[in-house]
Amino acid sequence: MSTETVLQSLDADLPAATDRLFDFLRIKSISTDPAFASECRRAADWLAGQLRELGYEASVRDTPGHPIVVGHAKAKRPDAPHVLFYGHYDVQPPDPLDLWVSDPFDPRLVQGEKGEEIVARGASDDKGQLMTFLEACRAFQRNGGLPCHITFLFEGEEETGSPSLPDFFAANREELSEPALALVCDTGMWNAKTPAITTMLRGLAQEEVILTAADRDLHSGIFGGPVVNPIHVLAKIIGDLHDAEGRVTLPGFYDGVAELPEEIAAQWCGLEFDETAFLKSVGVARPAGERGRSLIEQVWSRPTCDVNGIIGGYTGPGAKTVLPAQASAKISFRLVGTQDPEKVLESFRAFVRDRLPVDVRAKFVPHGASRALQLPFGSEALSRARRALQEEWDKEAALVGCGGSIPIVGAFKRDLGMDTLMIGFALEDDRIHSPNEKYAYSSFKKGSRSWARVLAALAA
Amino acid sequence: MSTETVLQSLDADLPAATDRLFDFLRIKSISTDPAFASECRRAADWLAGQLRELGYEASVRDTPGHPIVVGHAKAKRPDAPHVLFYGHYDVQPPDPLDLWVSDPFDPRLVQGEKGEEIVARGASDDKGQLMTFLEACRAFQRNGGLPCHITFLFEGEEETGSPSLPDFFAANREELSEPALALVCDTGMWNAKTPAITTMLRGLAQEEVILTAADRDLHSGIFGGPVVNPIHVLAKIIGDLHDAEGRVTLPGFYDGVAELPEEIAAQWCGLEFDETAFLKSVGVARPAGERGRSLIEQVWSRPTCDVNGIIGGYTGPGAKTVLPAQASAKISFRLVGTQDPEKVLESFRAFVRDRLPVDVRAKFVPHGASRALQLPFGSEALSRARRALQEEWDKEAALVGCGGSIPIVGAFKRDLGMDTLMIGFALEDDRIHSPNEKYAYSSFKKGSRSWARVLAALAA
Repeated sequence: MSTETVLQSLDADLPAATDRLFDFLRIKSISTDPAFASECRRAADWLAGQLRELGYEASVRDTPGHPIVVGHAKAKRPDAPHVLFYGHYDVQPPDPLDLWVSDPFDPRLVQGEKGEEIVARGASDDKGQLMTFLEACRAFQRNGGLPCHITFLFEGEEETGSPSLPDFFAANREELSEPALALVCDTGMWNAKTPAITTMLRGLAQEEVILTAADRDLHSGIFGGPVVNPIHVLAKIIGDLHDAEGRVTLPGFYDGVAELPEEIAAQWCGLEFDETAFLKSVGVARPAGERGRSLIEQVWSRPTCDVNGIIGGYTGPGAKTVLPAQASAKISFRLVGTQDPEKVLESFRAFVRDRLPVDVRAKFVPHGASRALQLPFGSEALSRARRALQEEWDKEAALVGCGGSIPIVGAFKRDLGMDTLMIGFALEDDRIHSPNEKYAYSSFKKGSRSWARVLAALAA
Repeated sequence: MSTETVLQSLDADLPAATDRLFDFLRIKSISTDPAFASECRRAADWLAGQLRELGYEASVRDTPGHPIVVGHAKAKRPDAPHVLFYGHYDVQPPDPLDLWVSDPFDPRLVQGEKGEEIVARGASDDKGQLMTFLEACRAFQRNGGLPCHITFLFEGEEETGSPSLPDFFAANREELSEPALALVCDTGMWNAKTPAITTMLRGLAQEEVILTAADRDLHSGIFGGPVVNPIHVLAKIIGDLHDAEGRVTLPGFYDGVAELPEEIAAQWCGLEFDETAFLKSVGVARPAGERGRSLIEQVWSRPTCDVNGIIGGYTGPGAKTVLPAQASAKISFRLVGTQDPEKVLESFRAFVRDRLPVDVRAKFVPHGASRALQLPFGSEALSRARRALQEEWDKEAALVGCGGSIPIVGAFKRDLGMDTLMIGFALEDDRIHSPNEKYAYSSFKKGSRSWARVLAALAA
């Protein structure tokens, strides 16, 4: 059985696959609203039913929140690789309802400006994406069996921060950690014609610093000058955190930050990212940040330091002649490569302490730290997935980064010791979390085909 | 009639003067509490009665708040100088009542650790001080007449910010602006043995600066770096406002700031101000501010710049990875000499604008500006008052400054074109505004004698 057969089978089955997705989309599995708890369970049951229909072992496991579905499928060959596929069946509330052109839970296939699209809550995030993978599995099942062993993990609390997952991972570590690689289909394409694999997620280290000087707020007319002003001290420290080139000045900050491989740098240049449009969309005209680095590079592969909040003294209406006793700032560092969050925070604390005048004390409050996650550019799974996507899309897959964090991927690494291959077919204009969410029909169709190719490639 | 006769007459009359002060102290003229409005009027009537008893013209004038008492007294010689004496008859509420050792409105003469003292609300602030002047006038009246023409101005809203004064000054400018000099007895001695004349009040210019970058708060993982962070920009600007020597770096800031006359600098050195104790009282150990300037100099005769408040981004509990759109600071400048508040604020605005990167806009919100007030060191009235005080206290009067502002003095200058001679006999431990407020009996007795000498000297 060739992959070509599987792909033809997928194409032939598209109308039925679309019906199945529509069934799934009709379930109002809104995780944040307790009124829809039974709908969430219905979605979990529905997914377990899909897995069982394909002959896989599947169970719906209770959690303190919404249930988690776990499934296990054997490959046709015992020595096949073993992967874990993750998706979530819960969706965001559809509000505001009056902005939808049709019922958010009555999916429709409509002709959009750029082609056919499926309009419904969850069409893109994440039901449509999840089903691209299940349909690929179904096509293999119809044609001799799966090329990989697969563990399925479907949760119903992604939109509410996945509160039940850590305990679930701890309680089921042995069962879940067998696969060598996680597959996640919750990301996007670079554009409608260019597939993408997300290989870099930046880490994050957050710390609050509270500076205290006098033992109480004072009259600035009597004490201003003779008594040190902690706002001035904090401002000076923050001002010192970056140099004129936009680089972070903390000693050792760039330890573990590698330059991009030439191939990747060249690929990113070729993506022709419109920096001006990106900046204009939020009301600014010129790029800030590290001099000499493209915006893509800055957001995907460079570390940053940002003050997320600052407060001190009188901040109400009008003016007050107070010399404040305290000033504080919340600071976060985005991390890449092998930067050690603890070392970065230690360097930050030392940087602050080195700049404290007599009489100013610093208190540090940690707000969490996580390392960057990177699927090594040289990894075999990545090479195979790239080739598979190129075959389907006739275009090289962009190896993209993500400036923010995708918590589940961190949990796979931390709790299950697993790297993640992030491939998704969402498009920027999918309106996820907003009225009239859609999923391009081409994403659904070619997404299923892509997964068939990727699964075949991983097992080749 | 010699001044000596007047002083002897004052001494002889002390028991009766004490009774009069006690009568005044028994009136519960709490201006902030509407329940005591009739008591405020009673205090005004009582003062007008005192003036009339001395043969002066006196009237109680209605205002939207508590009444203002205006009196006019002629000197025995028509060509005598004309002064205006200001005092206030209102007092702070006595709460918390349970901390008083006796009824706050039942004045007592008690033996304190450092001598006899009058304990009552208003004993020092300002009824006792006001009566030192009235008793001096009474003694002159008993002995041939006043050496100066005197306009009396007693208000009843000093403790609530004098809201009725500006309109009252505007409506009665001609009547009130005839005197050449105002006398105010609402300040303190340097210590129990050293009289003081307050000759310098710093000015104040206040401005809020609001920096805006992107058109909304953004995700710091996606926009941090490429999009300018207004907290960083504001911090850098604030950090640049002072140099390493603690001097303010605004161009032209020190225009109009003169060095102290040698005589004054020497006198201030001689005051042996305990900087360590001053700083320790608010929990710090080392002086900050301008390098090479004593704390007295810093607070009385040097200009400063302080950030009174700063805010931007997320300031609630925990952390939030936000790249803020806005950051703002409230900044105040204390001014001395002939510094021009408007020029200082203009220089500040230019300083900020010069440091704004592309895409950051600054909005400035003024919060008021006033010049420093200085009774010229070379003024004749000051020289005469110094000699008079030295004769009474057998110690050179300290020419002190005041780091904060005394609004009435600014109003005399601005609205009536009048300099003010500020002489008072309060002591640092008088507990004004607090339970068990007291006025040293020596302050009352020698305060009256001091005013007799000062009035005589001004007319000599």
